[in-house]
This record gives sequence, C-alpha cells and structure tokens, in this order.
Amino acid sequence: MKENGKVTIYDISKKLNISAATVSRALNNNPKISIKTRELVFAAAKEMNYKQNRLAQALKSGKSKNVGVIVPYINRNFFSSIIRGIEEELGPHGYHVIICQTHEQMETEIEQINTLLNTQVDGIFMSISKSTNNTEHFKKVLKEGKCLVFFDRKMDVPGVSSVVIDDFKAGYMATSHLISQGCRRIAHFAGDLNLEIYKNRHEGYLSALKEHGFKPNPDYVFRTLSSIESGAAAARKMWELKEKPDGVFSASDYTALGAIQELRKMGVRIPEDFCISGFSNEPFTKYMEMPISSVDQTPLRMGKIAAQVFLEQVDSTEKLTIEKKVVLSPELMVRNSSDRSLLKVAGE
Amino acid sequence: MKENGKVTIYDISKKLNISAATVSRALNNNPKISIKTRELVFAAAKEMNYKQNRLAQALKSGKSKNVGVIVPYINRNFFSSIIRGIEEELGPHGYHVIICQTHEQMETEIEQINTLLNTQVDGIFMSISKSTNNTEHFKKVLKEGKCLVFFDRKMDVPGVSSVVIDDFKAGYMATSHLISQGCRRIAHFAGDLNLEIYKNRHEGYLSALKEHGFKPNPDYVFRTLSSIESGAAAARKMWELKEKPDGVFSASDYTALGAIQELRKMGVRIPEDFCISGFSNEPFTKYMEMPISSVDQTPLRMGKIAAQVFLEQVDSTEKLTIEKKVVLSPELMVRNSSDRSLLKVAGE
Repeated sequence: MKENGKVTIYDISKKLNISAATVSRALNNNPKISIKTRELVFAAAKEMNYKQNRLAQALKSGKSKNVGVIVPYINRNFFSSIIRGIEEELGPHGYHVIICQTHEQMETEIEQINTLLNTQVDGIFMSISKSTNNTEHFKKVLKEGKCLVFFDRKMDVPGVSSVVIDDFKAGYMATSHLISQGCRRIAHFAGDLNLEIYKNRHEGYLSALKEHGFKPNPDYVFRTLSSIESGAAAARKMWELKEKPDGVFSASDYTALGAIQELRKMGVRIPEDFCISGFSNEPFTKYMEMPISSVDQTPLRMGKIAAQVFLEQVDSTEKLTIEKKVVLSPELMVRNSSDRSLLKVAGE
Repeated sequence: MKENGKVTIYDISKKLNISAATVSRALNNNPKISIKTRELVFAAAKEMNYKQNRLAQALKSGKSKNVGVIVPYINRNFFSSIIRGIEEELGPHGYHVIICQTHEQMETEIEQINTLLNTQVDGIFMSISKSTNNTEHFKKVLKEGKCLVFFDRKMDVPGVSSVVIDDFKAGYMATSHLISQGCRRIAHFAGDLNLEIYKNRHEGYLSALKEHGFKPNPDYVFRTLSSIESGAAAARKMWELKEKPDGVFSASDYTALGAIQELRKMGVRIPEDFCISGFSNEPFTKYMEMPISSVDQTPLRMGKIAAQVFLEQVDSTEKLTIEKKVVLSPELMVRNSSDRSLLKVAGE
C-alpha cells in the first residue's frame, strides 16, 4: 500500500502491460525503445499524473547536484564561513549544499555520512570531529565513488583531498608577535593536543620561543577546551604559578575571552601587564571594548578552495582520482589585547 | 553506462531473465513472489554483490527518517539553538537532521525545499526568509504529503503547524522594563516591519508606552537591519533629534551592540544617561564588559517543541492533518545596559 498515492513506473508498467524497465527507459527517452512505445508511455504518464522523481533520476545517472557539508558545530563563525564559501563557489554550478553537524561525536559523524550517501550527494566536504579515531567511514565514501574533501581538521586517507591552514605558521606568528611586544614568559592555551591542528599550533609556539632564544617552560602550557569557562580556569591556574607568565597565545578565541575576563577581575592590566592573542577571529573578538588579537584562518577562502578542488574532481571526465593537499597561510589580526604600540604613542 | 559500476535490480533482472519489478518484490520478501524465485533472486544478488539502497527503499516506503531544517542563517545563535533542539528531540527517534540556509533569499528557499523534497525527507522545519512573499513552495511540501512546521518566522498556510515566540509580549516586557528604570523617551530600533515578528515587537512597544501614559513619537522609531553598522547609524540619527531619547528597545542584539559602541564614543553614559535592551540573547550580549539586556526566545525549547509537533503528525496512523499553533513566552534577561538598580545600590 502506497501511503501518499503517488504514481510509480510500476503502475504505468501494469497499465500498459510492459516491463517497468521499459517504462523507465521510455521516460528517459532511451533510443533503444521504439518511438511508438515512448509515446504510449508518455501519454499514460501524463494521464496518470506521473511525476518523474529527480532523485530517482539521480539514482540512475549517479548525479544529484547536491553536496553535503559536515562540521562539528554550525554556529562557530569559522565553520559557517567555510560553508558560505562552498555555497558561493558551487551555487553558480547548480549545486545545492546540505549541512550536518556532529557535535564532535564520531558516532554522529558516521551516521551523517550514511545519511548523506543515502540522499545521493555527489560529494562530501567535512571537518572531522575531535573524537574521530577511525577512517572506515571515510573509505566508505570513496568506495561509493563519491568525492570527499577535508577542510581544516583532517586525517590522512589515500584519495582524499584536503584544504587546511598552516597552523604551525599561525602559532609561530602569534607567539613571535607577543615577543615583539616585549613578552618574555609566554604561556600557551593548547586545546586538545591529540588533534593535528592543535599540535601544529603548539609546535609553532615552541619554534618561535626557541628561535628567539627563550627556553620553553612546560608549566606554561595548559590543556584547554574551546570555552570561556576553560579560559577562566586556565587563567586562575596560570596565576597560581610562582613565576607568572606575561602573555599567552591561546589556540581558541573563547579561551582567550575567558582568560581576559578573569585576569581583569584580578586587576591585571591588558596589554600593559599581560598580552593575549586568540585564534579563529570569531566576530566577538572585534566587538569587545578590549578587542582581542586573533589569527584569521581565512575560512571563506578555505571554503571556496575546497569547492574548487571538488569541482576539479567531479568535472574530470576521465576515471581518475585527484588527491590535492592545499595549505593556506593564516593572517594575524593585531588588536588592543596585545598591541603595546598604542600605549607607547599615548605615553609619548 | 553506469559510472560507479553499481549493480542494480535491472542487472539482476537481466541475468535471471525476469522483470525488474519481480526482482524488487523478491528482494523485499513480497509473499506474492514464490519462495523459489525469492531464493533465486537473493542468491543472484549475493553473487553479484548487490546492495539494496536505503534510499531506494525510502522511495518505496515513503519514510527516509531524514528531516530537513531551513533557516536564514546557520550562524545566528538563535537558529543554531533551535536546530540543536530539533536534533536532541528527534535523535532518540532515529531521525537525522540535514540543514540548509537561505541567506534571506526566497529563490534559495524554494531551491532548498526542492532539494530536501528530492532527498525524500519526511518533514521540513523552517523559518522563512525576509524576502519571501509567496506560499506556493510551502503548499508543494504539503502536496507531496510531507509534514511542514514553521518556527519563529511564519506565514499563514492552511495545514502548516507553527511554533513561535510571543513577540508582542516580548516588546511589551522590554519596553515596560525600560520605563521601570526611569526612561521617559523610549526609542525603538524596529527591523523590517513587513515581517510579522518585527511588527509584533513594535506593537508590544507601542502598547507598553500607551499603557504607562506615554504618547508614542513616530520620530523615535527607526527602521534598522540586524547589524552592528545599522545600530551605529541609528544611534547617530537618534542623536540628531532635538529631544533625544533616553532609552531604546532594539529588536536585534546586533543593532543594540552597534548603538552602544556609537553612544559610548559620543560620551553617553550607559545606563546612567541611556538604557538599552536588545533581542535574541545572542551569547555576546553576556560576554561584553557592558553586558546587554536582551529578550531570550528560548530557542532550544522552540526546537524541541517543533520536533514534538512533527512527531505527533508523522506518528499519527490515521490519514489526518494536524495544524497546531504553539506560542511560547519570552524571557527578559536584565543586564547592565539597562539596570539602574545596580547604580542606586552603589550610590547608597
């Protein structure tokens, strides 16, 4: 029993007493079917108010003109800007973008991939969740002949292209900037160091310290979550140290914000006593009365380039796999939270 | 030529020399097909590595266990929280949520609806875009037998359920609060008054003024966009008035933030000289050094209730249409930008 009473090719097949395969081929104007039969089928389809399902067609042609994007959270400016970039680039090519979020759960990520594959997307763009430790579900996408592009957070899977930011360089830039502002005991709010992106930011931080002749102090590295609460907690821990840091490179803007709020409560002057730089260039970093320095990951550009990588792959008529690794350069946005040059001018 | 080399029922049909319809029925264990034929088909399917497509099954059963959510922007906390609520409520029922954004374009909205219908979602949740002036695409959803639920921004379409906030009450509450803080010349940043939600907030504002014996002044009502720039511009215009307002109920947090920044630049003391309340309880309103009062629309609850309305409808075994209109009560979050009680205590 069909619930919605929709006419299918089976109904037409029954009415005309020909096979469903013939009906389907006739509706698709397949030249193997005689013109007479095609006309019969079209007439019956019209009479029975049959509507060809675009999806059923997609099932046959293998192209739906839909792509899926999977991100940990849709409400982080970084991810929503990447999605915007993908939409802007793919829109003119007739693609529709559907979005899923994983809330950092690998289990949800696997389900979302299945959901997207079942809706016959032509490709999947994604940033993997923090808990992902397995690549089987990524391989499944490739096995089904679909294009997979990682952005920002990736794992190494043969055949999968990726577009990432140079996180090492970002960590190096932010830390060198703090040194240039006179900071000598620079801490780091590190995020989850099991994740490649955070590991690379941390290594950039270490490299900048060493290159400028500072000995890295492990007590100055704090494992943090990307939240205001975690930043406040890290600031309190940091202030319990005998030799207090005089600056921090935070791998997250939310952590930076929490630390600023906590430090100011304790009477610490920013940037006079303490400089801080965040990461991601979340819009609020600009809004604050104390605007926060941050690393811009150029997410709109990242999304556009990810989309271009996809187009290159799906448009290639040859049966070949393109694996492309794109690494973008970050931009440091220096603002009041770490800019002592403003103070000097005011003091002159 | 099939591109991905996947085995279809047509291939099995050809191999066994029986109709595709018979293959399909056999694979679905239809008792109309003899056990012998079913066994033959299963053996061939196994041998040929045929995988039944979950989606193809969905096409037949009419249930995909996917739902779509369409919002103007995914990166507004209000919308992402509603989506979170829908996910939390539907997840345990085995539903997957896919998301699309319209960027306030009706044309995109129509395309997204078609995309979701083509991916065979069981229902669509949506908040209409600002430019939408037509209901044909909504009616199409109903014609295809799918459930449609509006949240927050809606149009009146017979058969469509909706979950909204009481915007009139919200405008009334915020304005009454400003009056209680001693404001006597209260302006309003109104948003797009063609949209029901903004019209209702405006009417709540007018009603509170009248009820407290104030004559509404049309010069005090500013058409604004939901952006920081628009708030700053409105603040400048407001300050050109001969008789300057001493408070504003802003229908958007972004507009409120822009106005606060601009007014403080001009040396206006908040809340001493001027009180301000925003709308939406965007997270940044809490983060600011000058936390901004705002109307909380309880979006998580809104999403959960929208999901419950959907479940009620799809679970009903009877062929009936449920049209449910839910109106939620807003909550006013009073913060420093409009709270003079803090000042009085300090002065005592």
